[in-house]
Amino acid sequence: MSPSPAKARVGHFFEDFRLGQRLVHAVPRTVTEGDAALYVAFTGSRFPVPCATTAARALGYRAAPVDDLLAFHVVFGRTVADVSLNALANLGYAQGRWLAPVFPGDTLATESEVIGLREASNGQAGVVWVRSVGRNQTGAVVLDYVRWVLVAKRDALSPAPVATVPELAARVGPETLVLPDGLDGFAYDTAVSGSNALWEDYAPGERIDHVDGVTIEEAEHMMATRLYQNPAKVHFDQHRQGTSKLGRRLIYGGHVISLARALSFNGLANAFRLAAINGGRHVAPCVAGDTVYAWSEVLESAALSGRADLGALRVRTVATKNHPCADFPLKGADGKDHPAVLLDLDTWVLLPRRRG
Amino acid sequence: MSPSPAKARVGHFFEDFRLGQRLVHAVPRTVTEGDAALYVAFTGSRFPVPCATTAARALGYRAAPVDDLLAFHVVFGRTVADVSLNALANLGYAQGRWLAPVFPGDTLATESEVIGLREASNGQAGVVWVRSVGRNQTGAVVLDYVRWVLVAKRDALSPAPVATVPELAARVGPETLVLPDGLDGFAYDTAVSGSNALWEDYAPGERIDHVDGVTIEEAEHMMATRLYQNPAKVHFDQHRQGTSKLGRRLIYGGHVISLARALSFNGLANAFRLAAINGGRHVAPCVAGDTVYAWSEVLESAALSGRADLGALRVRTVATKNHPCADFPLKGADGKDHPAVLLDLDTWVLLPRRRG
Amino acid sequence: MSPSPAKARVGHFFEDFRLGQRLVHAVPRTVTEGDAALYVAFTGSRFPVPCATTAARALGYRAAPVDDLLAFHVVFGRTVADVSLNALANLGYAQGRWLAPVFPGDTLATESEVIGLREASNGQAGVVWVRSVGRNQTGAVVLDYVRWVLVAKRDALSPAPVATVPELAARVGPETLVLPDGLDGFAYDTAVSGSNALWEDYAPGERIDHVDGVTIEEAEHMMATRLYQNPAKVHFDQHRQGTSKLGRRLIYGGHVISLARALSFNGLANAFRLAAINGGRHVAPCVAGDTVYAWSEVLESAALSGRADLGALRVRTVATKNHPCADFPLKGADGKDHPAVLLDLDTWVLLPRRRG
Repeated sequence: MSPSPAKARVGHFFEDFRLGQRLVHAVPRTVTEGDAALYVAFTGSRFPVPCATTAARALGYRAAPVDDLLAFHVVFGRTVADVSLNALANLGYAQGRWLAPVFPGDTLATESEVIGLREASNGQAGVVWVRSVGRNQTGAVVLDYVRWVLVAKRDALSPAPVATVPELAARVGPETLVLPDGLDGFAYDTAVSGSNALWEDYAPGERIDHVDGVTIEEAEHMMATRLYQNPAKVHFDQHRQGTSKLGRRLIYGGHVISLARALSFNGLANAFRLAAINGGRHVAPCVAGDTVYAWSEVLESAALSGRADLGALRVRTVATKNHPCADFPLKGADGKDHPAVLLDLDTWVLLPRRRG
Repeated sequence: MSPSPAKARVGHFFEDFRLGQRLVHAVPRTVTEGDAALYVAFTGSRFPVPCATTAARALGYRAAPVDDLLAFHVVFGRTVADVSLNALANLGYAQGRWLAPVFPGDTLATESEVIGLREASNGQAGVVWVRSVGRNQTGAVVLDYVRWVLVAKRDALSPAPVATVPELAARVGPETLVLPDGLDGFAYDTAVSGSNALWEDYAPGERIDHVDGVTIEEAEHMMATRLYQNPAKVHFDQHRQGTSKLGRRLIYGGHVISLARALSFNGLANAFRLAAINGGRHVAPCVAGDTVYAWSEVLESAALSGRADLGALRVRTVATKNHPCADFPLKGADGKDHPAVLLDLDTWVLLPRRRG
Repeated sequence: MSPSPAKARVGHFFEDFRLGQRLVHAVPRTVTEGDAALYVAFTGSRFPVPCATTAARALGYRAAPVDDLLAFHVVFGRTVADVSLNALANLGYAQGRWLAPVFPGDTLATESEVIGLREASNGQAGVVWVRSVGRNQTGAVVLDYVRWVLVAKRDALSPAPVATVPELAARVGPETLVLPDGLDGFAYDTAVSGSNALWEDYAPGERIDHVDGVTIEEAEHMMATRLYQNPAKVHFDQHRQGTSKLGRRLIYGGHVISLARALSFNGLANAFRLAAINGGRHVAPCVAGDTVYAWSEVLESAALSGRADLGALRVRTVATKNHPCADFPLKGADGKDHPAVLLDLDTWVLLPRRRG
């Protein structure tokens, strides 16, 4: 009998997507304390709530939730086999919100809907917009976000679909942010983070150099990306990547996001919860051997309706490679991206407010 | 006082083995969710049953069992200090069967019996056959297999034992495969794997290219091998290995088995359980930097007595290095092993059957 | 608005310490089975008590405690941001005792007191002695130790404090060692370790070559050090370290301690508990690519008051790089440290006694 290519999947190409198509992604994943420990080993994150049952319970969680980005990566990882196995570029994120917190023992599954399609002008590929929703075993939504990717066409001669570009909000409205149930920001003890800086202490325009840097090794980014069961070949297969333009394994952009968030503890230590992704862009590829640094700028400060105990900050975090961030690199004199910039991520984070 | 070599063990040599000898291997090991998470980080395995409590329970497991190969490696790891610390080569496996599934919290221990001995013709070493049995804390057998290794002699002048070569079955009879208690294959939802291919959809002779490749780093194979508490020096000690013929740390062959199994998800996504090892051979050494690919051939399809819901496939899985498997490499034109082949493994796997 | 250096911490300098100062270190940490699994992956430790619920319970623990050094590293990791972020050298340890065992689920927090200060003769730095106490969520002390570090001054012109050098005991008195509650050494089954050597079998002066060696990779030591949330830049940032005198990332000395302890299983397999650190010194820096070996010398043997079932051994463990330890390297002919020596650690360990 001849080979059976039908069983081994090679991923969807641009022609395979239809507007409104619903993708039920495979392999639900139970997140455990083992995953949470690995996440600390990969990132060094020190935000107290996912680290310490005591800190989480004091704030009103029933247990220590896993890191919001671990939840993100697990939800995202489900989508790759269907959405981006043949992606040429991961173009952006928008309208992301975290909803129910994820606790060890929760099982996450993801579904996506195709909300936009536009063939590239060269006819070789096309942009696919998907809205992905991650749910836990009770059906509660834990994460909801839009991303768009440039996906190769199987056949350059395939006809282009009608171009449909979704309208995406420039930012998530702070009034739509979801707070985990039962939190009491006044019960947060800043001794757990070592920083007294609360919501009131940050003002729009403020920039923070997160100081520390971390060099990435091949084993680290591959183990992290496998933990999230993201199967994109570009991250793992040096034999094939050796003949690519990059010549190297490409580090999963989410790993860079995680490192930037972990570095941001030094300056945003009480930003205990990622509430939303307003937008995000992987500005340049990252490879093993690069040392990642980060800085942040406070873009907005928003009180939350009916809450005197918690507030939101809109924070832009920029990650760089091999360039400490005391000079807050972002754009060059020519208005183009600074060559050291890897990531430009716009988020809402939650912080406790000062009782008063 | 003089050094005390008696306390630090240097492993058994060929002369130390006796036919019928029973080895009670040290260090029982409780397998946890931490081990299971690490196993995913090392292999990227996406088989749904060990990944998701929901998928495992739907199929009839009381909880998500750990990966069958994690159980294998833990059982195997116990044997190394007594059996193969002075092995020159790990020659083969046969008659392996998984029995009780292993759940987080189970404590595994291994005992072996020497079932064969034959001095090598050069008088410098000898082949030792052992049958090893891994049990959980209740005494239930979780794995039972035979392996044979070429073990160095302490003294080339030691007399040879009477040669005894055990008769080993060419394959495990499918009628002897053990199904975990309580399974209902009809309750398996293929949405969890993303593949509709069930037992009926595979036919003897069918070959599947598993497509993806994964490059191995030193840190990865050493961490995996340490997790299994396999103490063989060749995997860890570059200072000594630098002067060996290989010149490099040798990757534990079991790590290659795990990568091949994980890659085989792409083509055998519903093969939820490894039920037996019919035979296996590490064809060539693997070192860090190698990129592992795999392909499989269906050798036999067997219905299971009294079960309309589950069936078994006998699958030969071949792993290669630095050679994608679209051409199904196995033997060269000269009949010798293809130079890219690392592993040739013959197993029985279980799949759900189509209701009907 | 201008940059806000106040939020991102750059660590304390010598001038920031005051005698008697109490430091409540940030980020309590819940230790889990995930951390325990990672600890095995990083070290390959095979001591049975942390490995196997069955072995731990047989000896009288209510569950398998985590490795004593995992507890040490988590307690130590808390202190780094406040004590040693600007350390030029980690000079030594003394008066360390483990008290309550740490079980998965325990949350550890650390406080320190400054017990000594002495400016260095060059006026550029000073030695800071701290006594650090790690407690679990019930307030029970799990570890108590003194360390001293050479910390840079912010300004060489700052006035020197009155020099205060604490008196430190040369060793922890064996009569002050703390035994975990409920242990029954007679219930220990040596089959779990594979070694019959109990407390009575070791005599002062005895030296043991631990035989095995392990090569360290960058990914391994960084992941371990991040797991302990030790944020010292020197371990992670190759971009900055590239311009340092070492030119490389410096491996956290605690990782070397852990490797030495894990290697010591081969020769001290029944030393199930680290009870005290009498003293310790990181003799030379360790970098990735080094292969670590170890040997031990029994310095003292102490019966424990009222206990016929357990005894203590004072053990000096020496770790080397790229030098197997059959010749027990320590000092050169010139009386200086042997160039291969990395670590010289003086501990008390507990072993079961022979019923008799």
